Amino acid sequence: MNIPRSIQQFITVFSGLPSIGPRQATRLAFYLIAKGPHGVKAFADAVSGLSSLAPCPECFFVAERGACPFCGDKSRRKDSVAIVERPTDVLAIEKTRAFNGVYLVLGDLPKNGAFSPDQAAKIARLKARGSVHEIIFAFDQTTHADFGASLLARELAGAAAKITKLGRGIPTGGEIEFADEETLGSAFNRRS
Amino acid sequence: MNIPRSIQQFITVFSGLPSIGPRQATRLAFYLIAKGPHGVKAFADAVSGLSSLAPCPECFFVAERGACPFCGDKSRRKDSVAIVERPTDVLAIEKTRAFNGVYLVLGDLPKNGAFSPDQAAKIARLKARGSVHEIIFAFDQTTHADFGASLLARELAGAAAKITKLGRGIPTGGEIEFADEETLGSAFNRRS
Repeated sequence: MNIPRSIQQFITVFSGLPSIGPRQATRLAFYLIAKGPHGVKAFADAVSGLSSLAPCPECFFVAERGACPFCGDKSRRKDSVAIVERPTDVLAIEKTRAFNGVYLVLGDLPKNGAFSPDQAAKIARLKARGSVHEIIFAFDQTTHADFGASLLARELAGAAAKITKLGRGIPTGGEIEFADEETLGSAFNRRS
Repeated sequence: MNIPRSIQQFITVFSGLPSIGPRQATRLAFYLIAKGPHGVKAFADAVSGLSSLAPCPECFFVAERGACPFCGDKSRRKDSVAIVERPTDVLAIEKTRAFNGVYLVLGDLPKNGAFSPDQAAKIARLKARGSVHEIIFAFDQTTHADFGASLLARELAGAAAKITKLGRGIPTGGEIEFADEETLGSAFNRRS
């Protein structure tokens, strides 16, 4: 079809993004064009702005220059490390204000029983810090993540005075009648 | 929360896009950062590329320089005009290869019985061309669009030797953008 090359290019690039398909990318292209050159520039600048960011060399969250907002913050406990899969998990945890330590963004837990070389390097770095006070496994409460967590616990044996994981229980607003047995059982066992 | 300003800026701008919410925008930001500066640049360039485009002054589809791919094409009949609501409808129609005229992208048909000043100007321009051979209403087959089409028919009385609308090959309630090519093609061929 006869559509301008720059639109085709936009569609190709944007439909490569997670959860954006060619149809949505096409609509976005026309939406942006309708905003005019100034509107397009605002969006291009918002994308370009991200190029000043890189993974934090310590925790692999993002950092603007050198250390990230957490590793670079003297008021946060460096001997309490929450391991998460994704950077967005860090944001979710920060919203709770329940944690004042630092993070390690490990990436998706392995499905096949082996950590990637990249993950193995992150784990080795964490162990090289010497024994920390606490390592928290802040993972999804899924069978897949439980499996990954048990592998990780084996790797990290001796790396912390204690290794903990997120409490399992009934979510706020949840009703007992609709809780699955495992959740309700853990809620009973962890009653306080 | 303590996240870099450029990420916040990205989230603000991108969650302003249709059908993208703050959560998806946040995931996109981290996805792009993980691509590194080169990956980010490819995306920024894809957005910037759109700034060379502007609405075609004739039909209000997009054009790279001057006339659009349809108005600038000598092989297309200028006296056969398909009026559509959205530029993406043009793409869907082009895929059928059932139409060799030109377009008028009118924008969303009015819900309140009155065309916007912008639309009124487009309609006036079309009438100023003098009577054309055929005007085709290529609208969704919805009650709302039928209502808009009847208003438009009144405005365009005498502007064409015949005013046609898409054949009822498209199921009632269906939208052009989601019609398969064959259905949309036969709707073009069976216009009446």
